[in-house]
Amino acid sequence: MEPVSHQMMGYDRAITMFSPDGRLLQVEYAKKTVKQGSTAIGLVCQDGVILVTDKRIIDTLILPESVEKIWQIDDHIGVTASGILSDARVLIERAQIRAQQHRVTYDTTIDVLSVVKDMCELKQICTQSAGLRPFGVSLLVGGIDSSGPVLYQTDPTGIYFGYKACAIGESETEIEAILKKQHKDSITVEEGFKLCIKALSKVLGKGLTPDRIDAVYIKTSERKYKHFSNRDIEKTLKEAKKNNN
Amino acid sequence: MEPVSHQMMGYDRAITMFSPDGRLLQVEYAKKTVKQGSTAIGLVCQDGVILVTDKRIIDTLILPESVEKIWQIDDHIGVTASGILSDARVLIERAQIRAQQHRVTYDTTIDVLSVVKDMCELKQICTQSAGLRPFGVSLLVGGIDSSGPVLYQTDPTGIYFGYKACAIGESETEIEAILKKQHKDSITVEEGFKLCIKALSKVLGKGLTPDRIDAVYIKTSERKYKHFSNRDIEKTLKEAKKNNN
Amino acid sequence: MEPVSHQMMGYDRAITMFSPDGRLLQVEYAKKTVKQGSTAIGLVCQDGVILVTDKRIIDTLILPESVEKIWQIDDHIGVTASGILSDARVLIERAQIRAQQHRVTYDTTIDVLSVVKDMCELKQICTQSAGLRPFGVSLLVGGIDSSGPVLYQTDPTGIYFGYKACAIGESETEIEAILKKQHKDSITVEEGFKLCIKALSKVLGKGLTPDRIDAVYIKTSERKYKHFSNRDIEKTLKEAKKNNN
Amino acid sequence: MEPVSHQMMGYDRAITMFSPDGRLLQVEYAKKTVKQGSTAIGLVCQDGVILVTDKRIIDTLILPESVEKIWQIDDHIGVTASGILSDARVLIERAQIRAQQHRVTYDTTIDVLSVVKDMCELKQICTQSAGLRPFGVSLLVGGIDSSGPVLYQTDPTGIYFGYKACAIGESETEIEAILKKQHKDSITVEEGFKLCIKALSKVLGKGLTPDRIDAVYIKTSERKYKHFSNRDIEKTLKEAKKNNN
Amino acid sequence: MEPVSHQMMGYDRAITMFSPDGRLLQVEYAKKTVKQGSTAIGLVCQDGVILVTDKRIIDTLILPESVEKIWQIDDHIGVTASGILSDARVLIERAQIRAQQHRVTYDTTIDVLSVVKDMCELKQICTQSAGLRPFGVSLLVGGIDSSGPVLYQTDPTGIYFGYKACAIGESETEIEAILKKQHKDSITVEEGFKLCIKALSKVLGKGLTPDRIDAVYIKTSERKYKHFSNRDIEKTLKEAKKNNN
Amino acid sequence: MEPVSHQMMGYDRAITMFSPDGRLLQVEYAKKTVKQGSTAIGLVCQDGVILVTDKRIIDTLILPESVEKIWQIDDHIGVTASGILSDARVLIERAQIRAQQHRVTYDTTIDVLSVVKDMCELKQICTQSAGLRPFGVSLLVGGIDSSGPVLYQTDPTGIYFGYKACAIGESETEIEAILKKQHKDSITVEEGFKLCIKALSKVLGKGLTPDRIDAVYIKTSERKYKHFSNRDIEKTLKEAKKNNN
Amino acid sequence: MEPVSHQMMGYDRAITMFSPDGRLLQVEYAKKTVKQGSTAIGLVCQDGVILVTDKRIIDTLILPESVEKIWQIDDHIGVTASGILSDARVLIERAQIRAQQHRVTYDTTIDVLSVVKDMCELKQICTQSAGLRPFGVSLLVGGIDSSGPVLYQTDPTGIYFGYKACAIGESETEIEAILKKQHKDSITVEEGFKLCIKALSKVLGKGLTPDRIDAVYIKTSERKYKHFSNRDIEKTLKEAKKNNN
Repeated sequence: MEPVSHQMMGYDRAITMFSPDGRLLQVEYAKKTVKQGSTAIGLVCQDGVILVTDKRIIDTLILPESVEKIWQIDDHIGVTASGILSDARVLIERAQIRAQQHRVTYDTTIDVLSVVKDMCELKQICTQSAGLRPFGVSLLVGGIDSSGPVLYQTDPTGIYFGYKACAIGESETEIEAILKKQHKDSITVEEGFKLCIKALSKVLGKGLTPDRIDAVYIKTSERKYKHFSNRDIEKTLKEAKKNNN
Repeated sequence: MEPVSHQMMGYDRAITMFSPDGRLLQVEYAKKTVKQGSTAIGLVCQDGVILVTDKRIIDTLILPESVEKIWQIDDHIGVTASGILSDARVLIERAQIRAQQHRVTYDTTIDVLSVVKDMCELKQICTQSAGLRPFGVSLLVGGIDSSGPVLYQTDPTGIYFGYKACAIGESETEIEAILKKQHKDSITVEEGFKLCIKALSKVLGKGLTPDRIDAVYIKTSERKYKHFSNRDIEKTLKEAKKNNN
Repeated sequence: MEPVSHQMMGYDRAITMFSPDGRLLQVEYAKKTVKQGSTAIGLVCQDGVILVTDKRIIDTLILPESVEKIWQIDDHIGVTASGILSDARVLIERAQIRAQQHRVTYDTTIDVLSVVKDMCELKQICTQSAGLRPFGVSLLVGGIDSSGPVLYQTDPTGIYFGYKACAIGESETEIEAILKKQHKDSITVEEGFKLCIKALSKVLGKGLTPDRIDAVYIKTSERKYKHFSNRDIEKTLKEAKKNNN
Repeated sequence: MEPVSHQMMGYDRAITMFSPDGRLLQVEYAKKTVKQGSTAIGLVCQDGVILVTDKRIIDTLILPESVEKIWQIDDHIGVTASGILSDARVLIERAQIRAQQHRVTYDTTIDVLSVVKDMCELKQICTQSAGLRPFGVSLLVGGIDSSGPVLYQTDPTGIYFGYKACAIGESETEIEAILKKQHKDSITVEEGFKLCIKALSKVLGKGLTPDRIDAVYIKTSERKYKHFSNRDIEKTLKEAKKNNN
Repeated sequence: MEPVSHQMMGYDRAITMFSPDGRLLQVEYAKKTVKQGSTAIGLVCQDGVILVTDKRIIDTLILPESVEKIWQIDDHIGVTASGILSDARVLIERAQIRAQQHRVTYDTTIDVLSVVKDMCELKQICTQSAGLRPFGVSLLVGGIDSSGPVLYQTDPTGIYFGYKACAIGESETEIEAILKKQHKDSITVEEGFKLCIKALSKVLGKGLTPDRIDAVYIKTSERKYKHFSNRDIEKTLKEAKKNNN
Repeated sequence: MEPVSHQMMGYDRAITMFSPDGRLLQVEYAKKTVKQGSTAIGLVCQDGVILVTDKRIIDTLILPESVEKIWQIDDHIGVTASGILSDARVLIERAQIRAQQHRVTYDTTIDVLSVVKDMCELKQICTQSAGLRPFGVSLLVGGIDSSGPVLYQTDPTGIYFGYKACAIGESETEIEAILKKQHKDSITVEEGFKLCIKALSKVLGKGLTPDRIDAVYIKTSERKYKHFSNRDIEKTLKEAKKNNN
Repeated sequence: MEPVSHQMMGYDRAITMFSPDGRLLQVEYAKKTVKQGSTAIGLVCQDGVILVTDKRIIDTLILPESVEKIWQIDDHIGVTASGILSDARVLIERAQIRAQQHRVTYDTTIDVLSVVKDMCELKQICTQSAGLRPFGVSLLVGGIDSSGPVLYQTDPTGIYFGYKACAIGESETEIEAILKKQHKDSITVEEGFKLCIKALSKVLGKGLTPDRIDAVYIKTSERKYKHFSNRDIEKTLKEAKKNNN
């Protein structure tokens, strides 16, 4: 919670205002939005990159397959998000268009970092201009570059970093603790998938059903965005739950 | 009710402002508008999709047939709304134009999800830009895609989900409870219509007259937006009321 | 009267702001403006449509014929208003231009609903954009469509409904009570005119002089906007007053 | 005076804001500006139209003939104003340009009502758009139309009415009382001029000198904007003062 | 001083706001700026027009000739100002350009009133548009028209009047009292100059040195903007001081 | 310090607002910024013009020659500033471009006053437009015109005056006192330079090292912007310090 | 900390507002942001220029090589930053584009000062325009000019100075103290690199691992932006730590 005096003085009520101690409080509040979002994990493996996410569906009338939490940007790039999903979509559609334009203009695929930088440029503008609020969403962008599989995380300020493994959303701290212990550079996509499911299962407990999980991988050899099958998810979650007990 | 301190500090008075706990209160208030709107139901059936709505007319001088609560977007797509109806119309006219443009440009019909995404883009912008307020309306969009009948619900933030069955407006909680119990994937348009009328009748009680009901179906085989006849509505409502006693 | 706390918190002071209970208070205040306007009545008859209005002139130096309260949109469409008359004029001029453009572009007359929808679009925008206030006026639009005589009412939000008979302005509740009792689908323009004058006379009492009344009819057979003559108004009002005693 | 609570809540501090009882207070305040302006009278006569105004000059160093209070719009149209004179000029220059354009485009003279409507359109916009204030001025527009002499009055909202005789400014109530008693449709320009001077003299008392009066007439037969001569003014005022005693 | 309650309510803090008694307080405050400006005098004489001004220099390091307080608009037009001098310059440069454009476009010199009207148009806009403040300056514009020498004064609202003689700035009341007594229509430029110096000297006392005075005349016969020589100023001031004792 | 009540009422918080006593407080605050800036001196000599300034460097890691406090506008014009240096740069770059454009367009050098007027125009705009703040900087512009060496000073309002000698910044009062006593019209560039160093040294005391001083001269005969050499500065400062004791 | 009264009055809440003592508080707050950033050092050496920075990575899942804290502008120019990194990126991308354009347009490399000036222009604008906040970042720009190696530092106001050696960020005071003692003009790139690592190590203590350091040099002879190798960093840091004990 911010010191009350900052609130009394209104420093936290405009994106274009620094507090006397040099903070941008609206941006910090936007980050709290992310912390309340559903959990998503990204993992760089020896042979590809993985994105796994909790769709957090409870309403049985919702079609689980309609709940998008991982989006394809191009054949070789995927994104998952935590925070305000309608904000995420603005950024993702921008990225999809940019990737398409790149294909058409240069006849090659865009590199992952360019996609990340472009979305972050828009995010930064929204932290500096009156009349807009910051994007209330963090993104995990995974893909295959000429140098192999890569994973980037961007936050509401528009800053980004490369990661070996990263979690965003409500359980990010607990999941990252698990990842730090168990992630190795030599991990394969198959092993990495098990690690992610195990971590999610440990943190979310019994409530985690196969329906709630979405998982995508892109292998370096294929450069093709693919979903893990429902069968794989069910089987892996079952094992994970067994081991948790 | 929001904690008073949020109100005192003014976090809930601008769309472009996060509260210190990361919420967008103006958007949450807009959702309350929807909760006070008249009830509407959407249902995916084995052979088509249904939209049923309470027109909530009490004034006997109003022409019931002039009260639009379900709108045709294209031959194969319909929409119903709950909340501020003049807001709904802005979104619906946009969708109608988009569908027409698609026909003209590509000589095929637009898919339902594209219509939904386009309306949600505008909704999102209105939650992020100063000088605008969020749209105070939720929509149920039903239609036939290449994969069969589909139903989407969008809320004031611009987020959307696919549903098997969904209710919006003042009685959404009670209606959804009924739907969860009685909806099956194998339900037919004829049976689904009875289910919707039964649910509405149970929740709205004796005040519900045939005049107040509007109901539309689109069959997968026909791909044609059609109204249930007044006779069908009267008959079905009569039966429903009998069974309720 | 709004709960004081809403006023204290300022929810009612910007058009782009929802109150915590999901209301747009500035729009509700605009509706009160309409309730203070002079009374106007619209009536769908078997053979046409009627608009009758109280011009509310008291200043004997004003030229009664210069006080416009009913405006012609096209040969087959008329409008009357209650609320801020200078606001009404903006909408009416827009409609007149639209009708003219339709004639020129398509070589047919515009249908009444298109005129109504177009004015409502502008009204809706003024409830959602900062820097503007809602239009403080309700309109009754009467005309002849291919299906016969029609009557629409629009309020400051930009919502509209079709009516058999409708009153707006300070005496709308009393007049509508009379209309509900005495209006029949089989009523003729001649009978309808008497009904309107009778209702106005009952509600406004002795102060109502022929000078204050303006009345227009459009017959389905003629599709021509015509004023009731001063003689007709005088005679009918005289009879009405006799019957009231 | 407004109820203090309206002032406390700030409803009267933005043009784009309705008070809870449906009023636009900034517009009402603008009307008070007019009530403090110098007095102006317009009169429709049998054979023309007259505008008479108090220039309210007290500083003997001012050139009385440089104090414009009546402006020529076209050969057949004149305007006088009460309120903020620099505001009036904006409207008058607009009207002069419009009249000129009409001559050039259609090779006929503009009708008086078109001039009035055009100025009122701008006035209305200034009551609905943030970033502007309403025009603090009322106008009397007199001229000759195909139907003969006409007189219109517009207020700060942009509403207008036709009048037989009308006064605006600080003494409008007293003058209108006199006009109501003594104006007849058969009055001639010569008699009307005397009536206006008599009324002004009665209300303004001994302070009214010939220098302070400006007076213009347009005869139906001539369609020519002309000033009453200084000699006429002096003589008529002298007589009026005699009769007042 | 404004009634405190107006200040408490904020009516005086936006140019686009009327106070409940129909005043524009920001414009009234701007007029106070003028009253604190240095004194300037304008005089219409039989054979020309004079502008005389106190430059109010006290810093002996300032070059007196660099302190402009009278500006040439065209050969036959000069302006002096009181209030915010940087505001004055904006208006004066606009006038100079307008005069030049007139010469080039029509091959004749612009008339003085056109120059005045053009500057006043800009002044008026600044009293009606948010985001601008009124010009804090009054101007005296003197020149030769076809009808002979003329003098206009404009205030911060953009209103203007013709004058025989006029003073603006801190001593305007005292100077005007002198002018009213001693100005005659038959005064010559030479006599008028002495009158102005005498008046300035009487009001400003011993502090008035020749350095502080700037004085310009335009004779009807010459139509040429000319400065009174330093020698003339010295001599005339000396005489004036003698007579004052 | 402003009267507290002005601050309480907010008159000092917007550039577009007059206080009730006709002042523009934001502009007055900007002038205080200048008073806190480092000291700069300008001097008109018999044979040229001098600008001398304290660079106020204390950090020994800063390259003294990189600290610009005097800028060349053109061969024959230099500027020094006191206040917010990044504000100064905006004005100076504008002047440099204007001077270059003048050379290219007219093939002659621009005169000093045109440069000054152009910068002041921008300064004035920033005192009248919402959304901008006034420039927090005063400038001394020195150069050679056809009439010989000239020196102008401009303040944050955009007003300018010609000077024989002028100081701006923290020690302006003390320095000007010295200049008034010791400046003569017959002073040479060489003598003037000594006078400036002596004045700076007296006021700034022992802390003034040669490194902190920047000094420029333009001789009438050369019309060339030149720096005094480090050796000259050292020698002259040494002498000055000796004499001060 | 600002005097509370400034905060109470709101002087610190808009970039376009001076406080009564002539300060721009929002800009001062932005400078505090920089003071909380990670430390960066720049050094001009005899044979080139060095930039060294603490990447401040603690999360072991972040890829250290993906954390950019030094950016290449052109072959011969590098930049490092302290403060809000997403703000820095906006400035850096602008500089990269400007450098590229210069190459294409003039077929020569841009000089370092032009790059600095261009970024500072944007920074200044953000301190004067409403609707934007100042950039919360300081930059160190190092490169090779025709005169040899140069180093500039810019702060949030957009002011810049040349330096021999400079530190920004949380430890700037301690590091600058070390640099002042130990920097010599004759230092070589190799020695300078050791000095920077030693200073960082002394101030940041044991927590400083080789992973956290990024270091770049550009030699005058090569004009090529190059990273110090990981091996060099490790070795040099090891030595530095030894010497610190």
